[in-house]
Amino acid sequence: MEFQFNDALPVLRRTPTVLRGLLLDLPDPWIAATEGPGTWSPFDVVGHLIHGDRTDWMPRVEHMLQHGDAVPFPAFDREAMFAASEGLSLTELLDTLGRLRTENLDRLVGLDLTDADLARRGRHPELGVVTLSQHLATWVAHDLSHVGQVVRVMARQYSTAVGPWRIYLSILGRA
Amino acid sequence: MEFQFNDALPVLRRTPTVLRGLLLDLPDPWIAATEGPGTWSPFDVVGHLIHGDRTDWMPRVEHMLQHGDAVPFPAFDREAMFAASEGLSLTELLDTLGRLRTENLDRLVGLDLTDADLARRGRHPELGVVTLSQHLATWVAHDLSHVGQVVRVMARQYSTAVGPWRIYLSILGRA
Repeated sequence: MEFQFNDALPVLRRTPTVLRGLLLDLPDPWIAATEGPGTWSPFDVVGHLIHGDRTDWMPRVEHMLQHGDAVPFPAFDREAMFAASEGLSLTELLDTLGRLRTENLDRLVGLDLTDADLARRGRHPELGVVTLSQHLATWVAHDLSHVGQVVRVMARQYSTAVGPWRIYLSILGRA
Repeated sequence: MEFQFNDALPVLRRTPTVLRGLLLDLPDPWIAATEGPGTWSPFDVVGHLIHGDRTDWMPRVEHMLQHGDAVPFPAFDREAMFAASEGLSLTELLDTLGRLRTENLDRLVGLDLTDADLARRGRHPELGVVTLSQHLATWVAHDLSHVGQVVRVMARQYSTAVGPWRIYLSILGRA
């Protein structure tokens, strides 16, 4: 699919709802589960998405509109949530993500981006020249990727519990 | 995690809601998108889950309770949805999945399974001896795996649209 603003927007709108549906009030072991040392739990993923909504997605849109590719984006700290989520409950994180996402998409829609705007260039600190539409497509794919991570982390908690069925379930990885 | 009935049940309850949140009223290109010939769209996945709820998950629970490992389960047709979903809308499929899942989990809870029941054996036509708890753990992992498939299929529609960001998004697969 080519990037179309009107296809992307409803996916971005749904992410907080989807994560709420998956995680809110689920028994704690699911929320804290990881794939092993150094990997993220569903709790960590929600915090990571919050940090993206705070510091990456709309700030970079606005950065591109203001500076084009003359000034690289500030770098994004993909592990900032380990400090930022400390002491918070999953419910609080889900509420925050929902609120931030609504605000951010309201700002995005308010920009009334034209096709010419979507073709505008920015400069990623590592990847070099990118376009606004690539940035927005990445926002969508990044959301979906982390929803996929959450369900993979959860599924893998049952890698042993499924017994011989494991060989049918590629999401569980190799035994 | 070891399988615990009370951990598994809320995950199974949420799957129809999660898929509704992800897919209901989304622009058609997302619903019909695949990963290429012979792969499934989100529409196909919902149909596949319906067929599992109709013919696999609870029927096999009841089969195990009745026959133990003396009689193998009937085989499951994992592609039955291609015929069964024909002419139906995604909304109809999501409604059906929600209704079937509620009925099935009500039946499951009504069985009031003991730990001894969860250890009961059945016979899979290919995998041989399995237990009831392995079957229920597989139901959970299978649901999560297909939610993961839906978001992966969707994300991959933007494999090109994300431009250079592709190298950061492992969900998109190799270029």
